[in-house]
Amino acid sequence: MLPFARITIIGLGLIGSSVARAIKANMPTVRVTGYDSDTGVRERARPLGFCDDIAGHAGTAVIDADLVLLAVPVGAMGAVAAEFAADLPADAVVSDVGSCKQSVLSALSAALPGAVIIPAHPVAGTEKSGPEAGFATLFQGRWCILTPPADAPSAATEKLRIFWQRLGADVEIMDARHHDMVLAITSHLPHLIAYTIVGTADDLGEVTQSEVIKYSAGGFRDFTRIAASDPVMWRDVFLSNKEAVLEMLQRFSEDLTALQRAIRYDKGEDLEALFTRTRDIRRSIVEQGQDDDAPDFGRKH
Amino acid sequence: MLPFARITIIGLGLIGSSVARAIKANMPTVRVTGYDSDTGVRERARPLGFCDDIAGHAGTAVIDADLVLLAVPVGAMGAVAAEFAADLPADAVVSDVGSCKQSVLSALSAALPGAVIIPAHPVAGTEKSGPEAGFATLFQGRWCILTPPADAPSAATEKLRIFWQRLGADVEIMDARHHDMVLAITSHLPHLIAYTIVGTADDLGEVTQSEVIKYSAGGFRDFTRIAASDPVMWRDVFLSNKEAVLEMLQRFSEDLTALQRAIRYDKGEDLEALFTRTRDIRRSIVEQGQDDDAPDFGRKH
Repeated sequence: MLPFARITIIGLGLIGSSVARAIKANMPTVRVTGYDSDTGVRERARPLGFCDDIAGHAGTAVIDADLVLLAVPVGAMGAVAAEFAADLPADAVVSDVGSCKQSVLSALSAALPGAVIIPAHPVAGTEKSGPEAGFATLFQGRWCILTPPADAPSAATEKLRIFWQRLGADVEIMDARHHDMVLAITSHLPHLIAYTIVGTADDLGEVTQSEVIKYSAGGFRDFTRIAASDPVMWRDVFLSNKEAVLEMLQRFSEDLTALQRAIRYDKGEDLEALFTRTRDIRRSIVEQGQDDDAPDFGRKH
Repeated sequence: MLPFARITIIGLGLIGSSVARAIKANMPTVRVTGYDSDTGVRERARPLGFCDDIAGHAGTAVIDADLVLLAVPVGAMGAVAAEFAADLPADAVVSDVGSCKQSVLSALSAALPGAVIIPAHPVAGTEKSGPEAGFATLFQGRWCILTPPADAPSAATEKLRIFWQRLGADVEIMDARHHDMVLAITSHLPHLIAYTIVGTADDLGEVTQSEVIKYSAGGFRDFTRIAASDPVMWRDVFLSNKEAVLEMLQRFSEDLTALQRAIRYDKGEDLEALFTRTRDIRRSIVEQGQDDDAPDFGRKH
């Protein structure tokens, strides 16, 4: 049984275009309509063929959809929803793929009063952007978190669960507030730290940028990957999940200060104890299939 | 022309065993003798066959070597050098692969008065440890930094340069103090931050460890790789390069505080400007062959 027959995807970047491709690969009879507010992206998406049609306006894109999926920066959700609000079919389910869930629910609820809104977040991605960067297997073996509000019809949540499972994801239902806390530590803080250290390295006087690049294989290059992620998407994430990000950042800063002190006062045992403990988490991530065991992420040598 | 004919490697972990394997692959007529202070490692190394012989004592290992290469944690260099000091041939070159160069030169000079010491650092590695983890191509296309002291015979430095080039590395000569500053930002600080955030995540109450692991694909898992590196090796790195690490850490903390403030006060333009700038560094690293362009480090999807 197919949960949806006519799906509209708003936003045709890495995630939106990957969802479209995954639908084509796993539910080929579903009709996929695309829309992107950027004319250039619409033109680039067309020949890639992952949508059956690409609309010129948000309203015409949703007009007979039974699922409307927003794949735009979280700060743009409300505005784009307002654009198509008048054309949204009453029985359509509205969902999204954003990395913050409380702010998205607020924005969509305000723009689409009375609509069935089930926010969702597939925890998957790469550092690449744009419609060319998407691929059909992006969600295979990854988690997709649904955060239905208390009054959401359970049938709609169930259909969305089946939809994501068909794209290869494992589905979890979670409270939106808890989601935002979990993602603040597993995704938002890592990105913030990566952006920071790459910026710090870029600003040094004694060490040239060329040296930073040459010797990046000592660890630094790992951080540059996520620091190459979409700037607008990430600007919006930090502003939209401010409370949880600042909370996690505060804890991280305290822990970093403690390590700084351990280094200053030669507390070798404290350092070694932490470094031993962190190994176990890596092992669990690999065991649970959330990363490869290949050394160095399987990079070629 | 082969720069050395009889090479002794002290320490048979990831790096030492990779050097041995790379010698076998690129200079098969060179005789390689190995030694490790850990009896268990010596026993595991023997059947792997990357050494022609494995000695039971540091002194007997070096007795007719023309190159002695120390691949032990930087805090252990002085002690192991003292063990073989009496047996070191007068014309042997002593070098190492440690991640800090000022402290290693001090330790080796004190333990081996009059010896020819050319510290070196191949900027390469993986998060795996032990003799099983090494491989012959680890140094291909990576940089190896030599930090000869002012009074080092230039012929010895030249031989070491040829040696590392034959293992596939590009060689750079650098002042030891500058090396320690460069590596503090490109390697030591990234490891410190990765260890910290993995520890922070492990300590949370509201978010369980199982959630951190499940949703790690959002960015966190990237940090767990280097946070799985050898605990003793890294404890020694931070204590041995204390001054430069604390300096870089201070700069990083200032930059992180600035970003924290930008988030708190909704300075979206500041965030976006930084996130755009950091993309360029990633691009340069990929262009200069220090990382793959494949999305997500080329992980399988």
